[in-house]
Amino acid sequence: MLCLKSATNSQWIAAANADLPALLIDHAHCEKKAAATAISLVNRYPEKTRLVQEMLEIAQEELQHFSLVFHILLDRSIVFTRDHGDEYAKQLQCHAVKTEPDKLMDSLLIAALIEARSCERFTILSEQCSDAGLRKVYRSLLASEANHYTIFTDVAKEYYPAPIVKGRLSELSEIESEIVQMLGNTAAMHG
Amino acid sequence: MLCLKSATNSQWIAAANADLPALLIDHAHCEKKAAATAISLVNRYPEKTRLVQEMLEIAQEELQHFSLVFHILLDRSIVFTRDHGDEYAKQLQCHAVKTEPDKLMDSLLIAALIEARSCERFTILSEQCSDAGLRKVYRSLLASEANHYTIFTDVAKEYYPAPIVKGRLSELSEIESEIVQMLGNTAAMHG
Repeated sequence: MLCLKSATNSQWIAAANADLPALLIDHAHCEKKAAATAISLVNRYPEKTRLVQEMLEIAQEELQHFSLVFHILLDRSIVFTRDHGDEYAKQLQCHAVKTEPDKLMDSLLIAALIEARSCERFTILSEQCSDAGLRKVYRSLLASEANHYTIFTDVAKEYYPAPIVKGRLSELSEIESEIVQMLGNTAAMHG
Repeated sequence: MLCLKSATNSQWIAAANADLPALLIDHAHCEKKAAATAISLVNRYPEKTRLVQEMLEIAQEELQHFSLVFHILLDRSIVFTRDHGDEYAKQLQCHAVKTEPDKLMDSLLIAALIEARSCERFTILSEQCSDAGLRKVYRSLLASEANHYTIFTDVAKEYYPAPIVKGRLSELSEIESEIVQMLGNTAAMHG
């Protein structure tokens, strides 16, 4: 699956199926945070035209997905509660370079990895979610997540040499794989 | 104009016309920040369904406006530079109640006032901007800003008694008027 170096533990889907309302709430927050991340990249790098254009499209698409998931919550009378945070994303961000010139590359590649992992989880949900309606929803979202992964890596290659991007993506992907393997199995998109 | 207690100084339009690229850059940042504000309200009050629905629509509309203004920058080969901040909004936010239950009301009413002031400035630009193309753009954005003002005040009335909202809006509107009158005239949307 894209650049990922390990597959999700086979027990995760059981945890997700055991509490689909919690999974959906977490999913809604993920889409919202993805939009906020794209907007914050525009804030940080307004002079980088390609980045602004791509992040703007991603932010708009993530808000559409948020809207879709939020309406699923409403249809199912699930109360949208506060975000419990995303330990996976937090741990991954700890490994980001904090100073330029490489800070931007790491921001983009970590965002790419999160999209890739989401895409893998959506694939699992599209096949093994216990709710047929949700299997269809996740199938409909798959292509978009895969596309976002490609956009983030392409934007990285616009501003850094391709071999450098490839090498760093491989390093971060090793780290991502270790983090995923240490996660407990919870009903969260990156749980 | 809506709830505003003072009109913009007649010298502001001269300052705006004297540096339209700076005005457009600032305008793009305003639209982006408006989207970010709407998303942050969803973050803070996920359980308030009407608020989430309305903020989501506002965030999507603000990103569309950001996209429109960003493409104007591109068409005119204006480099989109960093946000210089918005002294007007900062000063207004200093007067917000910082604790619940009234913190939400103030967040909504301050957002409403910023939309109202933007709407007033768009009206001025739609009539007196020295660039005919931009006069048309600002005319096209007017209705949306006025609508956002109404949405923010309506959402406030959903969660607080209408007379309380009306009273607080009047107080904040007095403060807003004082802040606007103390601003220098610069080529910024709230300058």
